[in-house]
Amino acid sequence: MIQSSPNAVTSMAEQILAGDARALARAATAIENRKPEAEELLKELFPHTGRATVIGITGAPGAGKSSLVDQFIRELRSEQKQVGVIAVDPTSPYTGGAILGDRVRMLSHHADPGVFIRSMATRGWLGGLAGATTDLTVLLDAAGKEVVLVETVGVGQDEVDIARLADVTVVVLVPGMGDDVQAIKAGIMEIADVFVINKSDQPGADRLQREIKAMQSLSTRADGWVPPIVHTVATEGQGTSQALAAVRSFLDFASGKQRAVANWNMRLREMLRDRLLERFSGLDFEQAARDIAARRTDPYTTIDAWIRQILD
Amino acid sequence: MIQSSPNAVTSMAEQILAGDARALARAATAIENRKPEAEELLKELFPHTGRATVIGITGAPGAGKSSLVDQFIRELRSEQKQVGVIAVDPTSPYTGGAILGDRVRMLSHHADPGVFIRSMATRGWLGGLAGATTDLTVLLDAAGKEVVLVETVGVGQDEVDIARLADVTVVVLVPGMGDDVQAIKAGIMEIADVFVINKSDQPGADRLQREIKAMQSLSTRADGWVPPIVHTVATEGQGTSQALAAVRSFLDFASGKQRAVANWNMRLREMLRDRLLERFSGLDFEQAARDIAARRTDPYTTIDAWIRQILD
Repeated sequence: MIQSSPNAVTSMAEQILAGDARALARAATAIENRKPEAEELLKELFPHTGRATVIGITGAPGAGKSSLVDQFIRELRSEQKQVGVIAVDPTSPYTGGAILGDRVRMLSHHADPGVFIRSMATRGWLGGLAGATTDLTVLLDAAGKEVVLVETVGVGQDEVDIARLADVTVVVLVPGMGDDVQAIKAGIMEIADVFVINKSDQPGADRLQREIKAMQSLSTRADGWVPPIVHTVATEGQGTSQALAAVRSFLDFASGKQRAVANWNMRLREMLRDRLLERFSGLDFEQAARDIAARRTDPYTTIDAWIRQILD
Repeated sequence: MIQSSPNAVTSMAEQILAGDARALARAATAIENRKPEAEELLKELFPHTGRATVIGITGAPGAGKSSLVDQFIRELRSEQKQVGVIAVDPTSPYTGGAILGDRVRMLSHHADPGVFIRSMATRGWLGGLAGATTDLTVLLDAAGKEVVLVETVGVGQDEVDIARLADVTVVVLVPGMGDDVQAIKAGIMEIADVFVINKSDQPGADRLQREIKAMQSLSTRADGWVPPIVHTVATEGQGTSQALAAVRSFLDFASGKQRAVANWNMRLREMLRDRLLERFSGLDFEQAARDIAARRTDPYTTIDAWIRQILD
């Protein structure tokens, strides 16, 4: 445990900056559990950050994101890069964030001290997955991880937002999925810096590529970048080097600075939301819910009164 | 537009309670745009609510939720029931909530004055899909809609939460999807009051049913309900009557009252979050983001100062 004295936090910060893996693991847990000391630690670490490259990886369930992450880890490790992985999993709010099937493969890296993997489930109504991902990224950056892979499961707004708050965002698609997936593609077209068509040995990969190109022909990005489309079979390592090369070509292209400001703008909103909501943990929601269900009052009047009580 | 005077709000409320479709549409738009008058209107309408049955429908993209909703509308209309539909679509945050492919089918009901359909996209960082869904449900309830179908696209926590805030929750699955979907199933097992295996003419429907039953055999619900599993081919109307019958069997079983309290407890949290965050719209996130990106300050100190400034 982190001690709450300033000296203990400073000592912990020094251990993390020196790359101590056990201190890193303890700090990650403190962040996940929202310990007040974690915030002090992050303040101390922050000036030492800004060197890590954050790669966001998103896409529909079953697209093979974890297999791609696994291959990226292998390649980065073969270059002696220090790697951090944050696997965001808001889809199992009721099971406590068990490690998912595909992710078991990533466990093979757990024995490698150059790789730090943390799986993060939801925090309930207090939300804060984006805020917590930011905090963990700050921690991993300070701990000397040169690349942080942020993998988000699911296709909701939260997960898309989290993946977008990276230096480069990879959208993983697979051939032959249904109508809704086509619609999702429309929604994530604008956040993809690199498209990966995984399971590209399945029928429909070429058609999917044509569809992406057709969408790209309809509009150009403000920065002029045309996201490359890479075909992979991630479980067999096919095309994954090309996918990582495409990621790097975008990083070379992008100045980084402007994106960092835009990302911090978004992250600040998430972090503010998290911290604000913690102030309201003392309210008697249950009694109010009973009064509302019985129509003794209405939710709008209730919330007005609460906000006045706390803010004014 | 709703006028801001109290009399105008009362007049609008009277029109809605009388079932005026145009007043309903204007009020729905006012709610979506967070007009201050909308809140006053909802306060006036709330005492007249509590009669509508809310059916939540969730499941992975491509599962055929919209086709199922379409069939439910048909059947409810054949019984002369007034129907409201809220289609929650957080997956296209950047396209402004265009109507999705499958949903086009639902448009056939737009000419029917007994059906009111509203598609809702994200509201950006202010979030609030669950809060807005609640507001729209209150409105539709007050307007005399006897059944409100809430369809959520996507599989993130938000969408699951929204579907869960219904009187009965239908989880739509399809045979033959990948590993991640199995994991999602584990996450949504606990929220399903009724399982629908759609596209059940595809291979794997029986295996999927066996898997659900196997999960059900591992744990029993606190209320003792064993969620029925219904096979459908929604696009052809096969099994959809049975699915609706299963929904009704759960509604008969459940007292409703206890669930209403639990739901309001959750909804209050969402609504409080929405309204609270609106207070912070005046902060200069952009300047703060620039300072943080340049490491002139850190996000933790920035947020501490903001919260102190506004709350204390």
